Amino acid sequence: MSYTELKRQVYEANMELQVRNLVIYTFGNVSQIDRQKGVIAIKPSGVSYEKMQPEDMVIVDLDNQIVEGKLRPSSDTKTHTHLYRHFDAIGGVTHTHSTYATAWAQAKMPIPCLGTTHADFVHGEIPCTAEMTDEQIKRDYEEETGVQITECYRGQDPMAAPMVIVAGHAPFTWGVDAAKSVYHAALLEEIARMAYLTRTLAPQGSLLSQAILDKHYLRKHGKDAYYGQKS
Amino acid sequence: MSYTELKRQVYEANMELQVRNLVIYTFGNVSQIDRQKGVIAIKPSGVSYEKMQPEDMVIVDLDNQIVEGKLRPSSDTKTHTHLYRHFDAIGGVTHTHSTYATAWAQAKMPIPCLGTTHADFVHGEIPCTAEMTDEQIKRDYEEETGVQITECYRGQDPMAAPMVIVAGHAPFTWGVDAAKSVYHAALLEEIARMAYLTRTLAPQGSLLSQAILDKHYLRKHGKDAYYGQKS
Amino acid sequence: MSYTELKRQVYEANMELQVRNLVIYTFGNVSQIDRQKGVIAIKPSGVSYEKMQPEDMVIVDLDNQIVEGKLRPSSDTKTHTHLYRHFDAIGGVTHTHSTYATAWAQAKMPIPCLGTTHADFVHGEIPCTAEMTDEQIKRDYEEETGVQITECYRGQDPMAAPMVIVAGHAPFTWGVDAAKSVYHAALLEEIARMAYLTRTLAPQGSLLSQAILDKHYLRKHGKDAYYGQKS
Amino acid sequence: MSYTELKRQVYEANMELQVRNLVIYTFGNVSQIDRQKGVIAIKPSGVSYEKMQPEDMVIVDLDNQIVEGKLRPSSDTKTHTHLYRHFDAIGGVTHTHSTYATAWAQAKMPIPCLGTTHADFVHGEIPCTAEMTDEQIKRDYEEETGVQITECYRGQDPMAAPMVIVAGHAPFTWGVDAAKSVYHAALLEEIARMAYLTRTLAPQGSLLSQAILDKHYLRKHGKDAYYGQKS
Repeated sequence: MSYTELKRQVYEANMELQVRNLVIYTFGNVSQIDRQKGVIAIKPSGVSYEKMQPEDMVIVDLDNQIVEGKLRPSSDTKTHTHLYRHFDAIGGVTHTHSTYATAWAQAKMPIPCLGTTHADFVHGEIPCTAEMTDEQIKRDYEEETGVQITECYRGQDPMAAPMVIVAGHAPFTWGVDAAKSVYHAALLEEIARMAYLTRTLAPQGSLLSQAILDKHYLRKHGKDAYYGQKS
Repeated sequence: MSYTELKRQVYEANMELQVRNLVIYTFGNVSQIDRQKGVIAIKPSGVSYEKMQPEDMVIVDLDNQIVEGKLRPSSDTKTHTHLYRHFDAIGGVTHTHSTYATAWAQAKMPIPCLGTTHADFVHGEIPCTAEMTDEQIKRDYEEETGVQITECYRGQDPMAAPMVIVAGHAPFTWGVDAAKSVYHAALLEEIARMAYLTRTLAPQGSLLSQAILDKHYLRKHGKDAYYGQKS
Repeated sequence: MSYTELKRQVYEANMELQVRNLVIYTFGNVSQIDRQKGVIAIKPSGVSYEKMQPEDMVIVDLDNQIVEGKLRPSSDTKTHTHLYRHFDAIGGVTHTHSTYATAWAQAKMPIPCLGTTHADFVHGEIPCTAEMTDEQIKRDYEEETGVQITECYRGQDPMAAPMVIVAGHAPFTWGVDAAKSVYHAALLEEIARMAYLTRTLAPQGSLLSQAILDKHYLRKHGKDAYYGQKS
Repeated sequence: MSYTELKRQVYEANMELQVRNLVIYTFGNVSQIDRQKGVIAIKPSGVSYEKMQPEDMVIVDLDNQIVEGKLRPSSDTKTHTHLYRHFDAIGGVTHTHSTYATAWAQAKMPIPCLGTTHADFVHGEIPCTAEMTDEQIKRDYEEETGVQITECYRGQDPMAAPMVIVAGHAPFTWGVDAAKSVYHAALLEEIARMAYLTRTLAPQGSLLSQAILDKHYLRKHGKDAYYGQKS
């Protein structure tokens, strides 16, 4: 894929954040990787969605060095590249401060699986990272944010829960490409909102049974999936 | 009614889900029955509202066999046909994951009748199904979802509460045709939202009295109704 | 004022309910009185905002007899005329089931004055009527709804709190004309929403002091008001 | 800067309040100072956003005397001028009754720093003023509102927390110009909403650590900031 095409796809995915009401002002950023070339395209830092153009996307390698672009990349770039280096299957990463997902992050709580809307997309709870230590913050904050995330997935398939909330901060989501990572960001926000409403309505409410959780996840994902159209 | 006209009406009803903010992405599905022909038209599985066309609706018989259509029908088709087989008076069925109704479903609680907005449309509480057993889930999940619903209405008129919430899942609603089932889905969402706000504001608040509940329901429904225009 | 002009003003005020997101479908109704002619114009019953035309408004006298119009008037007409007969200063009445105001009605609680947004428009709490007895409901429900409201204002100026919530039901508001009654309906909804958020955030929070309440109300209302432009 | 240009900028900033859903009807007001001329331009009192024109802005000196303009200035003018006289670095002031910020004001609670969204813009909690005494209210209410605010910032940099909530009332925000003060009003509303959701979800939730708070604030502000583009 040419840089031009990569940047166009990342631009479109970033603009979708606004259409889906996941960001205000310059909040949020989306990237996509070209694994063959070993580079990502990512949103520039602090540029408003109204002014942003496809050519403003920045090409960065996996050591966080700018390969092409006149603007500074997102200040969260090191978190993105950390995820690409550790999760082989992912092709796109999204970071937002969407309201309900961020409320769960601020509460420092994983989102329990309370219903089939959740189980349709995530096979179990949506993890919440540990809080970062003061040493980590001083060392390399954005890199260490990535470390906190990948620590949550030791021995786990990152595609079975393609969304995480970073304690005290906000969500990161991923997918096979930039567009899918934004799709997961929008789903997370809706799941987080439903879970908020459920927990404030019925604080002691029980979880979804493992059997329904498996049923809903597996009717959409895996070799026996029957949701959607044959591709 | 021709298949073309049936599919057009079902298409319009599905599109209304988006206008009323009851769905995101490919969530939700609406069907309508032609009782004479013994078939329903239903939304195809996993197709986005932006791309969907009237001719994409799938014609299915009451044994869930495709009669006409190139796409797979909604993965919830067996729940729809179960309802049509058991509720003679209904002509349309809607399934959504609308936010507040789904929060009540996740809380696994029926929606109590707390005010006249509710009583104008539902004669009593909005039922919540029992949780499904692991055996049911393994047997035939979508069919059993229908069973859970019809079990709630043993000896009850399904038109007196044309909306139900499925525990751990989300709502189903119905009406004389597809359009009316969507209307009930929108009303349910608003009733569920008001009930959420009432219960979080006044957790021990008392129910609406039976006398006002009857008054509001019966001024809109039944032989002495005086709401609306003479038809 | 001609019937045509009265109906036009009432039509405009009804349409404003939708613009302000205070109603869905056929919910809500607004009326205005011509005191000289002893008639009101009011929304017809059960007609959608999309189809409604100015000429559909119904002219009714204060004994609830139709003076002009082909459609049935709102089923809440008797409540409107009751208010016009008992509150001399009012020229318009609005009834909605707006979400947050209705939640307070369902909680059967008056809205306490918690801040200056409230005090800018209402001099004290927003009253909640007593619950209606079964006898009242059987006697003449809509007339008795008016009785419940006027009972709240014995010895009180209805213009100092031009909005009330009817227990288990929903709000009524009024003003010098139909447009002002809709304005008060929109303000009530916002005040009710702020009060809901305040009470769920700080259940034991204290009221606004009487001194600030008086200050804010009186800088906008009465002979020493200094808010707005000289008329 | 000419009065015409000052008024145009203040007009644009006021109109932005509506675009950002921070006001309804005539709520809210924004001003900007020309420090060289010792005057501010401010929204006229009680004029709707739909009708307002740039030339309606009122030029007022720091003693609250009208310098130019046919309309009365905002009834909150004395609070604005008080802030300009005491906070040397500020160039614009915004007052709204935005919903969630006002809920915190009505709860009479400062907004604790619960996450990085907050820490990105405010270095610590968002202060809540003390309640005003009856004597203050009688003396000069709008001037004393300013006093309550500046009392909160004794020995503090007002730019490190460019937003405050006035107990029982609503927020004031400021910035280097009118546009930035509106930007801070919109950020405050979002921070207040996230904090409301966090506190109702996890009432005993812990604060953000001082180390992350510093990290996020300082990566956007101060000499070592690295967020955004080099100017």
